[in-house]
Amino acid sequence: MNDLKAKVIEAVKKVKETTPLAGSITNDITINFVANAQLASGGSAAMFYLADEGEAITTIGGAAYLNMGALLPVHKESMPAVARTCDAQGKVCVVDPVALGFGALRSEIMQDIKQYKPKLIRGNASEIKTLASFWQLTDAESGNAKGVDSTESVDDAVRAAVLIAQYTDGAVAISGEVDFVTDGKVGIRLHGGSPLMEKVTGCGCSLGGVMATYACVTDPFTAAVAASALYNLSGTRAAAKVNGPGSFYSQLLDEIYNASAEDIASAIDTEALFEV
Amino acid sequence: MNDLKAKVIEAVKKVKETTPLAGSITNDITINFVANAQLASGGSAAMFYLADEGEAITTIGGAAYLNMGALLPVHKESMPAVARTCDAQGKVCVVDPVALGFGALRSEIMQDIKQYKPKLIRGNASEIKTLASFWQLTDAESGNAKGVDSTESVDDAVRAAVLIAQYTDGAVAISGEVDFVTDGKVGIRLHGGSPLMEKVTGCGCSLGGVMATYACVTDPFTAAVAASALYNLSGTRAAAKVNGPGSFYSQLLDEIYNASAEDIASAIDTEALFEV
Amino acid sequence: MNDLKAKVIEAVKKVKETTPLAGSITNDITINFVANAQLASGGSAAMFYLADEGEAITTIGGAAYLNMGALLPVHKESMPAVARTCDAQGKVCVVDPVALGFGALRSEIMQDIKQYKPKLIRGNASEIKTLASFWQLTDAESGNAKGVDSTESVDDAVRAAVLIAQYTDGAVAISGEVDFVTDGKVGIRLHGGSPLMEKVTGCGCSLGGVMATYACVTDPFTAAVAASALYNLSGTRAAAKVNGPGSFYSQLLDEIYNASAEDIASAIDTEALFEV
Repeated sequence: MNDLKAKVIEAVKKVKETTPLAGSITNDITINFVANAQLASGGSAAMFYLADEGEAITTIGGAAYLNMGALLPVHKESMPAVARTCDAQGKVCVVDPVALGFGALRSEIMQDIKQYKPKLIRGNASEIKTLASFWQLTDAESGNAKGVDSTESVDDAVRAAVLIAQYTDGAVAISGEVDFVTDGKVGIRLHGGSPLMEKVTGCGCSLGGVMATYACVTDPFTAAVAASALYNLSGTRAAAKVNGPGSFYSQLLDEIYNASAEDIASAIDTEALFEV
Repeated sequence: MNDLKAKVIEAVKKVKETTPLAGSITNDITINFVANAQLASGGSAAMFYLADEGEAITTIGGAAYLNMGALLPVHKESMPAVARTCDAQGKVCVVDPVALGFGALRSEIMQDIKQYKPKLIRGNASEIKTLASFWQLTDAESGNAKGVDSTESVDDAVRAAVLIAQYTDGAVAISGEVDFVTDGKVGIRLHGGSPLMEKVTGCGCSLGGVMATYACVTDPFTAAVAASALYNLSGTRAAAKVNGPGSFYSQLLDEIYNASAEDIASAIDTEALFEV
Repeated sequence: MNDLKAKVIEAVKKVKETTPLAGSITNDITINFVANAQLASGGSAAMFYLADEGEAITTIGGAAYLNMGALLPVHKESMPAVARTCDAQGKVCVVDPVALGFGALRSEIMQDIKQYKPKLIRGNASEIKTLASFWQLTDAESGNAKGVDSTESVDDAVRAAVLIAQYTDGAVAISGEVDFVTDGKVGIRLHGGSPLMEKVTGCGCSLGGVMATYACVTDPFTAAVAASALYNLSGTRAAAKVNGPGSFYSQLLDEIYNASAEDIASAIDTEALFEV
């Protein structure tokens, strides 16, 4: 499937050439990292809290990113508004269902968003399993979520990811020691990264943001694969050059900035593609 | 006009000696950068959201900074409160009209703030043109804003900047590949910086924050020139030492911290001063 | 008192082995730094704004951190909810009374929290003195607070710290050029750090966050001593390697990450312990 590599190369180059805008509603812990990663990958960033700002920015943007960590009351209205705008305009809404199950507002928003079938969902294995349960997208094979933690393996969540992708007619990406991306028809595992990525807050959030950047110019499956490959490659490269999480953060952004389209594609093992 | 260089040197030294406080209401994407840039330049930082905190901190501070990116509902009351406090106390309020035109609250706040004539406005060319139109400070020469983007050239916005500065009896700074600062009577173009400044979120916001720091100890025109020169110098120096935006961010703060008053003044070409 | 060093070594090792979670409500200026410092020291981080999220995360966590800088309206309910949950569950709530005296909401929250006797309070000398006055925990020896600044010396606030610790039956830590920690019975001064820590926003906030991380696995006095020693050691080490505050920030996180339990204990002079 060199087709996938070709699509990834095309998407990465198009982002670097056109600086597409993906607006974000994202948690304040890592909001700076998300913006900087989007810029480093070649895109533009705009973050917001209010519903009408979100609709306006989503309308001029190519995709949007919603991250559910650390909610504020204002998110009740603005997150669904962005998901709805994406749905109405045929744009990819990347959703990161962080900490689903904690607090009433998060559940309310995720229930509300379900109808807009966001075209790319990214999370760790537990979050994806929790979301499948929460949206009642389960079968005998998908199993039950054990709760929100990051100890479940990616393999345990593959079926949940497939069911969600089939519901949204989009893609789902599970991040972990090995990553998994599916569009509900095929799936692929991706390798790389570094344990230091767990020691810097926001690697997952910013990965989601970069998925939205790529989703401005390509389909959600290719966007998720491209961003995951970029992070795996950049994480490995950065970890080889640093002595701790502080310098890793800076180096990771440098590696994201300097990774060529061909480098990124080379981090994808397309022989790993399989029907799900 | 070595007078301007002398004023800049005096202001930079006074900041380093007296650590003046400029409080800020600024967007959460780059709030950390704004604070760190103010500290690196020699000032103190205090960020807040609530109106009564803003009034109290503005009262003990020497100037204030308002950045309109990523508004929260609480800003409706607190931003005008800070602008009003500055006006009443004869302090410089630096306003960064980010994304004017997106969302109703931003327009409402900027309309409300107009009466307090904030003494220093900083933005890119589009933002300054948009603000002039929004405040109805236009003439045949100033042209119409094309909307919020950063593609317009600084020269296109010079007349808008002059009209705003004449209305506020303050100064206006346009940031771009070439910067422009005016007090409504004279203007100056400033050169330097690096394309990497577009690849790190918050260079503009933090520049505005440092303008507020300098405005604690000097007039708004000198403050804007000093901060712009500091950023042009530090950006050029930092870019020469790094390989990407992650390390550039760290190096930029180091260069801001280490730039001497004389270094900063040397980045100003006072022969470029002209009557507007 | 090699007992204290042994306790510190045990706590630091336990954190690195068990990655305990301390949830935080903290200001948006330094929220990223707090999370990264907790991760670098070996813990887990989760930040939130809403009361029900806070109760849920505090319940699964080992301790919690409340930082009063830059309040939002939502904090009125959520900060007392976290303090109450800690009190009910016998967990350490670390409170950082930043800027007490500025704005009505901060006073209201701190008054509300008093009843839950948070087991670890961290601040600079002025903040600790202000808090003792505000909670009416003063005597002839403790003196009056001069207001919120960081110019008062740690020694001036020792008595205030002791009185607060006796009221809460917990510990109080004063950060300054020399640090002081007391449990109301004994006290200890701690040395180290670097003037660059004043040039990067959030060294105090993230120190408080790391105290909460250690408080997941040990008593509040040991947690405060361990975190202070870690910061003193890491600050000194980082400052020796860098040229300014930007690189200092990255290097500080690296040093926190790489400091061994024995290194940290060696930064404590247990002969400095004295009865208060």
